[in-house]
Amino acid sequence: MVKVGIVGGTGYTGVELLRLLVLHQEAEVVAITSRAESGRRVDDLFPNLRGHYELAFTEPDVQQLAACDVVFFATPHNVAMNLVPQLLAAGARVVDLSADYRIRDAALWSHWYGEPHASPQLLAEAVYGLPEVNRKKIAGARLVACPGCYPTSVQLGLMPLLARGLVDPAHLVASSASGVSGAGRQAKIDNLLSEVSDSFKAYGVNGHRHLPEIEQGLSDVAGQPVQLTFVPHLLPIIRGIHSTLFAQLRGGTEDLQVLYETWYADEPFVDVLPAGMFPQTRAVKGANRCQIAIAVPQQRDTVVVMATIDNLVKGASGQALQNMNIMLGLPEDMGLQQAGLLP
Amino acid sequence: MVKVGIVGGTGYTGVELLRLLVLHQEAEVVAITSRAESGRRVDDLFPNLRGHYELAFTEPDVQQLAACDVVFFATPHNVAMNLVPQLLAAGARVVDLSADYRIRDAALWSHWYGEPHASPQLLAEAVYGLPEVNRKKIAGARLVACPGCYPTSVQLGLMPLLARGLVDPAHLVASSASGVSGAGRQAKIDNLLSEVSDSFKAYGVNGHRHLPEIEQGLSDVAGQPVQLTFVPHLLPIIRGIHSTLFAQLRGGTEDLQVLYETWYADEPFVDVLPAGMFPQTRAVKGANRCQIAIAVPQQRDTVVVMATIDNLVKGASGQALQNMNIMLGLPEDMGLQQAGLLP
Amino acid sequence: MVKVGIVGGTGYTGVELLRLLVLHQEAEVVAITSRAESGRRVDDLFPNLRGHYELAFTEPDVQQLAACDVVFFATPHNVAMNLVPQLLAAGARVVDLSADYRIRDAALWSHWYGEPHASPQLLAEAVYGLPEVNRKKIAGARLVACPGCYPTSVQLGLMPLLARGLVDPAHLVASSASGVSGAGRQAKIDNLLSEVSDSFKAYGVNGHRHLPEIEQGLSDVAGQPVQLTFVPHLLPIIRGIHSTLFAQLRGGTEDLQVLYETWYADEPFVDVLPAGMFPQTRAVKGANRCQIAIAVPQQRDTVVVMATIDNLVKGASGQALQNMNIMLGLPEDMGLQQAGLLP
Amino acid sequence: MVKVGIVGGTGYTGVELLRLLVLHQEAEVVAITSRAESGRRVDDLFPNLRGHYELAFTEPDVQQLAACDVVFFATPHNVAMNLVPQLLAAGARVVDLSADYRIRDAALWSHWYGEPHASPQLLAEAVYGLPEVNRKKIAGARLVACPGCYPTSVQLGLMPLLARGLVDPAHLVASSASGVSGAGRQAKIDNLLSEVSDSFKAYGVNGHRHLPEIEQGLSDVAGQPVQLTFVPHLLPIIRGIHSTLFAQLRGGTEDLQVLYETWYADEPFVDVLPAGMFPQTRAVKGANRCQIAIAVPQQRDTVVVMATIDNLVKGASGQALQNMNIMLGLPEDMGLQQAGLLP
Repeated sequence: MVKVGIVGGTGYTGVELLRLLVLHQEAEVVAITSRAESGRRVDDLFPNLRGHYELAFTEPDVQQLAACDVVFFATPHNVAMNLVPQLLAAGARVVDLSADYRIRDAALWSHWYGEPHASPQLLAEAVYGLPEVNRKKIAGARLVACPGCYPTSVQLGLMPLLARGLVDPAHLVASSASGVSGAGRQAKIDNLLSEVSDSFKAYGVNGHRHLPEIEQGLSDVAGQPVQLTFVPHLLPIIRGIHSTLFAQLRGGTEDLQVLYETWYADEPFVDVLPAGMFPQTRAVKGANRCQIAIAVPQQRDTVVVMATIDNLVKGASGQALQNMNIMLGLPEDMGLQQAGLLP
Repeated sequence: MVKVGIVGGTGYTGVELLRLLVLHQEAEVVAITSRAESGRRVDDLFPNLRGHYELAFTEPDVQQLAACDVVFFATPHNVAMNLVPQLLAAGARVVDLSADYRIRDAALWSHWYGEPHASPQLLAEAVYGLPEVNRKKIAGARLVACPGCYPTSVQLGLMPLLARGLVDPAHLVASSASGVSGAGRQAKIDNLLSEVSDSFKAYGVNGHRHLPEIEQGLSDVAGQPVQLTFVPHLLPIIRGIHSTLFAQLRGGTEDLQVLYETWYADEPFVDVLPAGMFPQTRAVKGANRCQIAIAVPQQRDTVVVMATIDNLVKGASGQALQNMNIMLGLPEDMGLQQAGLLP
Repeated sequence: MVKVGIVGGTGYTGVELLRLLVLHQEAEVVAITSRAESGRRVDDLFPNLRGHYELAFTEPDVQQLAACDVVFFATPHNVAMNLVPQLLAAGARVVDLSADYRIRDAALWSHWYGEPHASPQLLAEAVYGLPEVNRKKIAGARLVACPGCYPTSVQLGLMPLLARGLVDPAHLVASSASGVSGAGRQAKIDNLLSEVSDSFKAYGVNGHRHLPEIEQGLSDVAGQPVQLTFVPHLLPIIRGIHSTLFAQLRGGTEDLQVLYETWYADEPFVDVLPAGMFPQTRAVKGANRCQIAIAVPQQRDTVVVMATIDNLVKGASGQALQNMNIMLGLPEDMGLQQAGLLP
Repeated sequence: MVKVGIVGGTGYTGVELLRLLVLHQEAEVVAITSRAESGRRVDDLFPNLRGHYELAFTEPDVQQLAACDVVFFATPHNVAMNLVPQLLAAGARVVDLSADYRIRDAALWSHWYGEPHASPQLLAEAVYGLPEVNRKKIAGARLVACPGCYPTSVQLGLMPLLARGLVDPAHLVASSASGVSGAGRQAKIDNLLSEVSDSFKAYGVNGHRHLPEIEQGLSDVAGQPVQLTFVPHLLPIIRGIHSTLFAQLRGGTEDLQVLYETWYADEPFVDVLPAGMFPQTRAVKGANRCQIAIAVPQQRDTVVVMATIDNLVKGASGQALQNMNIMLGLPEDMGLQQAGLLP
C-alpha cells in the first residue's frame, strides 16, 4: 500500500482527494493536516466520508509527512513552496495542487502572486503535471506541479491547433466559466449563495493568475509565444468548468475533427465528442475527464473549441491522483474509473 | 459474470443503474431496452457513460431479457406487471424499481393507480425490497419490489420508534422534500427549470401514491395500523430526499439516540449520526446511504427524526443493486462503495 | 415627503428596503449608515440601485437620524436596543427589523439571545408589527418591532385555527424552509454557495430563536399557552419561506376554507388560495404577500396549512414599509404594489 | 387609458408583460388570448398575478384585438406574420415580441426559419424596436419588431465600437449565456431542471437564429458588413443574459470608457459601469436595464465588452413596453422604474 499524506485537508480539493481515494485499491491515507481543525475527525467536517475514514486532522508535522510515499499539497499558494524542500530532502514525493511550482520563471511567479518565491531552486525540477503533455517526465518526477483548473481545460482544448500551427497564436480567446468551488472553502461574502446563485458574471478580466500559466503551456506547445485574452466567469453551480475557445484559422485543409480524435485517441481521460455533439459540465461531474468538441461556425475562419472538466477532479484532485499513479507506476486510471454523476 | 438486463433505460433510474454498474465487478449489462430510443447508443443519450458502455437501446424482447440472470425494470408503473410473469416463467429474476409490486393488496393498488393490477397472483410472492427489513426474504426471492424513494426514507426513519411502541401510531407526520429527478425524465412544463428552480412548494397534499406503501410498511413494523400525514415538497435540486418526521412520544425513558445507533449498528447503508449532528442531502449525493438523526426539541413530547437519501441511489437504483447483490449472494456493497459527492 | 433613515444598510434587509422605496412616492431616504462601508456609494455595493440613489453610507449619527421622520433598523440584534431610546427621545419614530423588541419578556429575550436587554423599559411600549393582528396599535406607535420571517409565516398560517379553538394548542408542528438570504450578508463558510447549494437540511432543531416569538404570538391569539415543535430548514435558493404547519383537529364541522377566506378577506397582503391550489415561494418573490392554503388530507384529524412569503419582503423589509405606511397614515400598500417575479 | 391586447399570453414574455403592466398607470389590459388555456383565469396559471388581474384567457378574436390601441404578440414566430396585416388594417398598432418582422430580407428570414414569410410586404414598414437606435422611427410606427434577447445585449455592447470604426468588423466574437426562460414555457425534456440545472453548455454553435438579426443590426451601425462568431450558452438560472464580446482593436487612442459613457449618457435604460466594475446578471433581474463594462486586458489589442440584461425585460417584455410608451408618446420609463431584484 502506498502511504499518502495530505497537507491542508479542509478545503475542497482535500475532501475531493479523500473521496476519490476511497476507491483506490493501493493507497492509504495516513496523515491529513490542518492547523485550524487539528483534532477534529475528518468525517465530522465532511459527513460524506463517514464510514470511509477514521482519520482526524493533525498539525502539519514534517517528520510524519516525510514518512509518506506521496504527499499532496491541497493548500492555497505559498504553503508548499516553504515545506516541499524539506519533504523532498527526506525522500518523499510531492504532488502540489497549488500554484507554487506551476510557473518556471520565478520573477513571473512573483509578479502575479505578489511575493518572492520561497524555493525557486526547485522550479526547474518541478514537472508540470499535465499527463497529456508530460507523461514521461511525470513518471520519474519527485515533484509534480498540478495544473490549475482553467489551464487544464484551455490547454487541452487548444493544444492540437497550436501544435500543428493551424491558428494565429497572437489572438487566442478563452471565454471560460467555472463553478464556485473553484474559489475555495473560505469565508467570503462574495461567494455566499445569496451573492452568486441565480447570477452570472465575468471576473478577473484585467488579469487572472491562470493567464501566465496557460500562456506558458501553450507557448511550449506552439513553439513560439502565444497571446491569449482570457475572461473567466463565475457559474452559479458548485462544480464544472466550460471553456469556449476561439482562434483565427490560418487556412489549410486539415479536418479538425479527425485531428482532435487522432490527437487524443490514446488518452484515457480526454474524450473528443463526435461532430455535432457539444459538451456539458454535468457529463463530467465527479469524473476525471475532459470532453472536447470542435466547430467552425458558418464555415468562416474562426474555429470554436469547447472543453469541459470538473474543476475539482480533472482540474485538481483527480489529475493529482492521475499524476500519483503515473509517478508510482500504478495503472493510470486506478481510483479514477467513476462515471460522471448525471443527472 | 452476472448477465443484467434493464427494461426502460432512458429514465433517470436507468442511467443511474448504468452509472453504478460501471463499478460492479461481477455484473455485465447485456441488454437495455427502450421503444422510443431503440437503435440509439446509450452514451449518445447519456454522455457521462462514454467510454464505459458500447451498448445501444433495443426494443424490449422477452427472449433476450429472459436469458439474463437479473432483469431490472426502470419503468413507470404498469409496465412490469405485464412483462414480469413471462420473465419469471422463463427463469429470470426480477428487480422492479416501479410501483407495480410494492402494495400487497391488489384493490388498494388499483385505488391509487387507477387501473386493475395485471398480475395480482404475484403480489404475495413479491418481496418488498427494503433490506433493512426483509434481507432474508430477498436472498431467496425471484421477484423484488424496490421501495419508493419517499417510503425508503420515511420507513427507515420511523421504524425503530414504531417497532418499540414508543410513539402514537395514529398521528405520525412526514414533511418530506425531494429533488426534481424524482419526477422522472418526461416532457412536462411543471418540471422545467424555469418553473421549479428558485422555488419550493408542497404537492400531492391530498394524497400521494407513496402514502399507502409507507403505511403498509410501517403497520407491519408496528404490528398495528398506523396513520401518517404525508406532505411531500419539491426541492429546486436534482437529487436528494430529506424527510422530517414528527411523532408523539408515549413516555418511557429509553435513550432514543442509543436505540437508533443499536438498531442500525450492522446495517452497511444506514448511518445514524452522532447526537447534535443533522443530515444534509449533499452528504449522500450519489451514494447508497441513508443518514438519520433524532432529536426531542425542548425535551417536550414530540420526537423529530430526520432522514436523508439520494432518491436515485438508496431511493431507487442503488437499492435495486443492493437487492440484486443479496439475491445473488454477492457482497451486499459490491458496486456501492462510492462516497457522496460533496461539495 | 417622509424623511427616512436606515441604520445598517449593508445587509439584505437594507438593500431590500432601498429597492422597495424606489417605488414609494412619499418617502425619501436621507441617511443610510454603515460603519464598515462608510463613505462608499450605496450603488457601488448594490449595483441594482444605480440610477435610483445618489446616497453614500455614513457613520451612524444620532442627530442626523433623529431628524428623520422614520428610522429603520436593518441591523443584527443588539444594535437597536442601544440606540432606540435616544431616537425616541428626540422625536423620531422607529421601525426595528431586528429581534430586539419582539419579545415582551426581557428575561425570555435574554435567555434566547444570551445577553441582558439594553432597554427593557421599552418592551411594553413596542408594538409587535404584524398588521393583521395589531393594525390599530401600529397606527399610533412610536416603536414597532417587525416580526421575524418564520414567525410571520407561521402566525399568519395558524392564527385562524387557534383563535377559533379548532386545534390542540399543545401539539402544533411547523416544518418551515427558508432561502439563504435569511442568514444575512455575512462572511460564513456555512452559507457559501458550495456549501448550501444543491442540498437541503434542517438546522436549529433543538432551539431556534424564532420559537419564543412564535409561541408568544400564537398564545396571544389562542388565549392560552401553545406549544410548537418548530423545525426550520435551509433551502438552496436566495428568497422565500414556505411553512408547512400541522395541527390536530378537535372535531367540529367548520368549513376551514371558508374560515380562512373570511378571516383574511380584507387583508391586502394575505391571499388565501382557492381549495386545491397550493402556494409556491416563487409566486411571492419580491412581493409583499403571504399566500396560504389549507387541507385535511384523507379527511383524517390532522389539518395541514401551507404559508409562503418572501422572507425579505413580507418577512422583513416589505412588512417594515407596510408598518411605516400605517404609522404615518399613508395608504398601506404604497410602494408595495409590485407583483411577484415569476418565473 | 390605453387599451392593451396580448396575443399568446401563456408564455414567459406574456406573464412578464402582465407583471410590468401592473405598475403602468396609463395602460389597461383588455384582452389576453390563448387557444390552449381559453377560459382559464390568468391568475390561476400565474399565481403571482392574483389580486392584480381579473382576466381570463380567451380565444384569439381579430375584432376584439383590433379594438385595442396596442396589441402585443408574445407568441412563437409564425403567428404574428399571419395576424398582423388584419390588425393594422383595422387601425391597431402592434408590438411584436417574436422574430417575424426582425429581419428585413424575406429570403434570409425564410432561410433561418424554414418557411416562407406570410406577410413580406410589411417587412419594409416594420421598425426594429431597439430604442437606442431607432427611437424616432418607433415614435411614428404602426408595427414594431422587438429585438431578440441576445441581439439586444450584443448590439448595445458592440455598437459604439463599430459606429466609430475602432475594431475589425470581420472578426467579432460573442460568447453569450442565457437563463433557461429564454427557451420558453414549453414541455421539452431538454429544459427540465434535472437536465439543465447544475450544468453549463454551449448550444446552437453551428448557427443560431439570432445571428442574422445581430449581423443585420451591427452592419447598419458599422456602415459595412460585419461577421460575428456567436456562441450562445445555457445558464442554470431562470433569467439573465450576459454577453462577453471580443473584438480586435484597429489602433487609435480613443478612451473607450469615455466613448461608452458619452454614447449612452442620455439613455434611460443603458448603464455604463465605472471602469473596473463588471456587470452581473442579478443586478438587472426584473429591471429594464442593460449594464455594460469595457476592458482591454493586458493593454493588448483585444477589447472585451460585457453586457447584461434580463432576457425577459430589456430582452423582451420590458423593451416591448418601452416601445409602446414611445409609440404612444407616453414617458418612456412609465411602468419600468423598478430596480433589479438583488439579492
